[in-house]
Amino acid sequence: MGDTNKDKEVSKEHKPRAPEPLVEKMTGIPDWFYALKAASPTGGDSLAAERARATFDPAAMTRVLFGNNLVGVFEETLGVLQSDENNTFSKENRYYMGRSERFKDRLKMDSKFAEIARTNKWNDTQRTVANLLIDEPGTFSLHTGMFMPCLNSQGTDEQRKYWLGLAHNYRIIGCYAQTELGHGSNVQGLETTATYIPETEQFELHSPSLTAAKWWVGGLGKTATHAVVMARLITKGKDFGPHTFIVPIRSLEDHKPFPGIMVGDVGPKMGFNCVDNGFMLFNKYRISRDHMLMRYSKVDKEGNYHAPPVQRISYGTMIFVRAYLVASSALALARGATVAIRYSAIRRQFSDPNASKDDAVFQKFSPLPGSKAKCETAVIDYSLQQYRLFPIIAQSYALHFSGFWMLRIYVKMMKNINDGNLDLLPEVHAASSGLKSLTTTIAAAGIEEARRACGGHGYSLFSGLPDFLNTFLPLVTLEGDNHLLTQQTARYLLKQVKKYSQDPSKIPTNDSSTTKYLGAPYLKSWTSAKKEEDLQNTDVLLDAFGHRSKRLVVELATKMAKGQSWNDSLIEMYAISKAHCQYILLKNFVHGATDKRASKAGVTGPLGTLCVLFGLSTMEQELSEFVEDGFVSQQQTTWLRSQLKKTLAAVRPNAVALVDSWGIPDYVLNSALGRYDGKAYESMFEMALKEPLNVNARLHGDVVEGYEEYLRPLIRRGLAPPSKSKL
Amino acid sequence: MGDTNKDKEVSKEHKPRAPEPLVEKMTGIPDWFYALKAASPTGGDSLAAERARATFDPAAMTRVLFGNNLVGVFEETLGVLQSDENNTFSKENRYYMGRSERFKDRLKMDSKFAEIARTNKWNDTQRTVANLLIDEPGTFSLHTGMFMPCLNSQGTDEQRKYWLGLAHNYRIIGCYAQTELGHGSNVQGLETTATYIPETEQFELHSPSLTAAKWWVGGLGKTATHAVVMARLITKGKDFGPHTFIVPIRSLEDHKPFPGIMVGDVGPKMGFNCVDNGFMLFNKYRISRDHMLMRYSKVDKEGNYHAPPVQRISYGTMIFVRAYLVASSALALARGATVAIRYSAIRRQFSDPNASKDDAVFQKFSPLPGSKAKCETAVIDYSLQQYRLFPIIAQSYALHFSGFWMLRIYVKMMKNINDGNLDLLPEVHAASSGLKSLTTTIAAAGIEEARRACGGHGYSLFSGLPDFLNTFLPLVTLEGDNHLLTQQTARYLLKQVKKYSQDPSKIPTNDSSTTKYLGAPYLKSWTSAKKEEDLQNTDVLLDAFGHRSKRLVVELATKMAKGQSWNDSLIEMYAISKAHCQYILLKNFVHGATDKRASKAGVTGPLGTLCVLFGLSTMEQELSEFVEDGFVSQQQTTWLRSQLKKTLAAVRPNAVALVDSWGIPDYVLNSALGRYDGKAYESMFEMALKEPLNVNARLHGDVVEGYEEYLRPLIRRGLAPPSKSKL
Repeated sequence: MGDTNKDKEVSKEHKPRAPEPLVEKMTGIPDWFYALKAASPTGGDSLAAERARATFDPAAMTRVLFGNNLVGVFEETLGVLQSDENNTFSKENRYYMGRSERFKDRLKMDSKFAEIARTNKWNDTQRTVANLLIDEPGTFSLHTGMFMPCLNSQGTDEQRKYWLGLAHNYRIIGCYAQTELGHGSNVQGLETTATYIPETEQFELHSPSLTAAKWWVGGLGKTATHAVVMARLITKGKDFGPHTFIVPIRSLEDHKPFPGIMVGDVGPKMGFNCVDNGFMLFNKYRISRDHMLMRYSKVDKEGNYHAPPVQRISYGTMIFVRAYLVASSALALARGATVAIRYSAIRRQFSDPNASKDDAVFQKFSPLPGSKAKCETAVIDYSLQQYRLFPIIAQSYALHFSGFWMLRIYVKMMKNINDGNLDLLPEVHAASSGLKSLTTTIAAAGIEEARRACGGHGYSLFSGLPDFLNTFLPLVTLEGDNHLLTQQTARYLLKQVKKYSQDPSKIPTNDSSTTKYLGAPYLKSWTSAKKEEDLQNTDVLLDAFGHRSKRLVVELATKMAKGQSWNDSLIEMYAISKAHCQYILLKNFVHGATDKRASKAGVTGPLGTLCVLFGLSTMEQELSEFVEDGFVSQQQTTWLRSQLKKTLAAVRPNAVALVDSWGIPDYVLNSALGRYDGKAYESMFEMALKEPLNVNARLHGDVVEGYEEYLRPLIRRGLAPPSKSKL
Repeated sequence: MGDTNKDKEVSKEHKPRAPEPLVEKMTGIPDWFYALKAASPTGGDSLAAERARATFDPAAMTRVLFGNNLVGVFEETLGVLQSDENNTFSKENRYYMGRSERFKDRLKMDSKFAEIARTNKWNDTQRTVANLLIDEPGTFSLHTGMFMPCLNSQGTDEQRKYWLGLAHNYRIIGCYAQTELGHGSNVQGLETTATYIPETEQFELHSPSLTAAKWWVGGLGKTATHAVVMARLITKGKDFGPHTFIVPIRSLEDHKPFPGIMVGDVGPKMGFNCVDNGFMLFNKYRISRDHMLMRYSKVDKEGNYHAPPVQRISYGTMIFVRAYLVASSALALARGATVAIRYSAIRRQFSDPNASKDDAVFQKFSPLPGSKAKCETAVIDYSLQQYRLFPIIAQSYALHFSGFWMLRIYVKMMKNINDGNLDLLPEVHAASSGLKSLTTTIAAAGIEEARRACGGHGYSLFSGLPDFLNTFLPLVTLEGDNHLLTQQTARYLLKQVKKYSQDPSKIPTNDSSTTKYLGAPYLKSWTSAKKEEDLQNTDVLLDAFGHRSKRLVVELATKMAKGQSWNDSLIEMYAISKAHCQYILLKNFVHGATDKRASKAGVTGPLGTLCVLFGLSTMEQELSEFVEDGFVSQQQTTWLRSQLKKTLAAVRPNAVALVDSWGIPDYVLNSALGRYDGKAYESMFEMALKEPLNVNARLHGDVVEGYEEYLRPLIRRGLAPPSKSKL
């Protein structure tokens, strides 16, 4: 993503759009309603004052985060989606639809998407961005996300040519069937078999038990015509373990499943309800031999198994997906923070003149009825609200810089691998495993905290956060369970520590190494933090993060050397992986906050403050691990808590600008509380008026369905008709 | 709840029920499907082995937790609900229904419930239990939960007689309208006005702005005929602040809202979708003077305001509700733990013979195909899974003992108040505020952790956890926001510390006091923990919890004495309230684990272990606060982590029995993964087959709705009909 000069287009994103008709006219609503306004100060008043306080230009920050090109792609793609003449991509009814309805609506979008992508000749980036904007996983996600990449990496040249051609044009729709009802993480435990029958040159797919059913397969339930199926290859009586096969499952003519296959949807989930995650059972279902994907392993006509000449490196895709998830976690947190910060600046409760002393709106607005105070205090001015929310802003930036770092290092690693150099692989694999685990966990927690920080309204779907959180949540399990994954990272760290202690010449000298700190001298105390203000120095913070991670690794290595079993070490492994990845997050944030791009854009100040906040708040959260070996002294913990408060105060004037900087459009937020223009309450009302229970009632003379059957008989049990007067 | 001898009935709960037809026959499903079984070892095999390992009788534990009487009420009420001839209270379709459908279904239950309660002459306990079992908040919850209590406490005798008589017989259906769109926690900021018009002897209710709309009012949206409305009383030009009025809102004849009122539903929420939380605006809406609830404040015909002779004590109901929420949090955690623990004993992934060394099932079952291991390891045997889940079991018991303690002390306090003694009020109010905050926060986190610990299947509604968590989540905001509430507790603690230091004779000497520890001598180090095994002693643990809480209170008091503002102290107040309440939780748990009832039932062993686990895991989680002043030494933290592991291992054999002990019936769990009989996978499949997308597809020849419109045109774009052969 290079930086070309497109300032004008970028800045546009940060200007309020033309006011929409709030609240629009609807039948059955009395005229006097339309005269009502939100009480002053309005959300718009508050946000305007916030934006006037900011010490930097959010548009400049957006460019630092994404570069102009990517920002341009977002704007252009958004324009295409929003200009669709049938309003196909509207999210207006999303929160009201039941599952079947929403599924069908999403199918309509998918069908239109395929057409638009073809017409506009969208490349992969544009497709990815468009899907991010639509922000609702659909049934085709796995077609392009797993089915096609899998054919590409595991099919022979002939298979690729044939199947990818069909898939690319949606002549077939594919899914990827690996997980079974009884087996997820442990691929070696899968039960489905593919037995070779030399007489007919076919494989017979079979599910020997109920738990062998393929399960959770996205797109399988209702739409896919083909599946890449992972099954145990059995030939000549020998089980060669899981291999992949391409399997036709539904007729291309009438879409009916073929005999011998039982397929359906796995039922309702917290989110992803527009995806038909499916199940599938095979009853001695035959496919011809050429349906085995044979780029590596092969079975010949006679049924002889041929192992691949060399074990191929299959980590590439996995690492890419994890890098992508780290970057996605940043955006997800940013979205949660955007809603909560904007609404906290709008929402006013109680009056604390001391807390509001820097709030221009507080000074300006007239007294509340019956109150001696001038105005109520914006909840963002309460220190506990800042303590809850500002670290989430800091985390979103921290995750962003590490996400983009991971994507860069992935590209470098793949280039090296193509040149025959595998050196980077173990380090990048370890970082990607631990970072995927840590960042998706942080993001899920941060979104939920942001939701709760919106008070009661955070519980309404109109806040934009519940539906979004539910869609994010599977990421803590998918692509490697967040607890299981930490073993990968820990294993690597334990190995490095052993290697460095046996041979100090192996200690990395390059600053870009993620494990250089493991070879640093072991300090007994935090000597670089000599006075309280030193805690604003990110190098000083990095010293502490490095020491803590190294100590935890060394202690576990020692325990295991003395015989502590693998299973008895899992708790420590989790801690090690987290400590290492928090070090990486801080390191990459420091780098991002001080690099050329940031200083050219004039945002090193606010970025640096945020970086310190990330370090201090993370340290406070994990404080025992820094303190318990005496590294951080009693006095230093006092400094830490005091500096943390000071840093929260330093972030305060820029809070709204820092979330504005992400440039997340209202179309994506789909949130009454988080809209750019601050019309939170007007928007809550408008959305409520569109609730089907209300619309239906207005159509039925303002009486709810079920009244005649259940309510009236209860209220009027054995009564004569009441008089017309009000009770 | 006395203990009568009803062992037989109690034990019944813990026996598996007669096997249900899994999977039941449905149309459109091939015969071969019914021959499939789950792979061995089955869930039933695993749970049987777990139950055989237990060192105590779960039925005896159930009696310790609830007493026989309450257990009897649960069983009897469950029997009544399940024997309804129309199966009105079935939960079979709950996870598939859209909002409107589910709302109507719940209305049907409510109507039936009213009938059954009348027929069976149910008392308050039976009604409460029945609602717990139905486990879905309905539109009438606020009628009995808020509307009637409010009339009762604030109406004159005449008003009570008239309105409560109607309400009790469901002649009117009520709700409680306090919160507004723009104001929640701050009642003094409400905007709705009730202006007295002496000419007509009426009040005119009016909403001066959009944000003045009553919002979130349960039962208001669609069903209530009347509302108790909180509005600012204005008479003779003076604003007397919020007062309560009873307001007719819908005609008793045809249920239509009266002119001058605009009312509707606030829209979809994360949960509570069977409750019609509503909004309401008034346009100069008149009610007669006798509709003001005048037990305390009064307005006479001429419009003169009469303040109540003494400020009445309004804390009673609030404290009761908070006590009830603490007890509910215990049950909620227990439910999450029941599902996750049972499923963790069933679910097997990978094979670690060392981890499975005490698992009889692991030894018994034959090798997996292609694997050298005997069997896979139950995930409950992985130490990290134990570290995630066993503390949740411990928390559920801890919360239970404090919940029941709160209910007892509430009764005692109310008795005292009736005798004119208010001494207990400040202490109980402080404990109830902090405990409500802490326990609902713990429970929400524990349920979500339990859900994630179920792996991918935890994301399915069939796990029983998502819907349940969504229903629980508002409790972190309702009845006092969990962050705001901690100020109440902190204020009280700060006052006590000051009082005790000024006058040591004020230090409580009674062991039942929650603040006696604040007057204890200030220790510099944890001298009672002399060796590692001392950490199994709950008195030693209590020493540490007491010291930590006292230190935090004293430090904040010192800072505030030096001028730190209230707003700058909110972070510390949150910490103080948590520390104090964790002390109370541990103290009450110690008491419950060692009392007569527990020793008579022979469960002090497992209860004591669980109590230690609660202490150790809580301490580990908050470790920095114990360590940072040097109270807990470096060596003692090593002991802590080591003893925590040992205690997890000690809980292991009883894990399933400890969740069985709660006796939560399958009807409440409504969970495929958590069923008592362990048929997790069979049940997942059965529930999936009932998914409407599948049922509809089977009715339409196994093709999904939307195929003809969106899929077929995409797949077959410009194609001649394909040949019949499979691709």
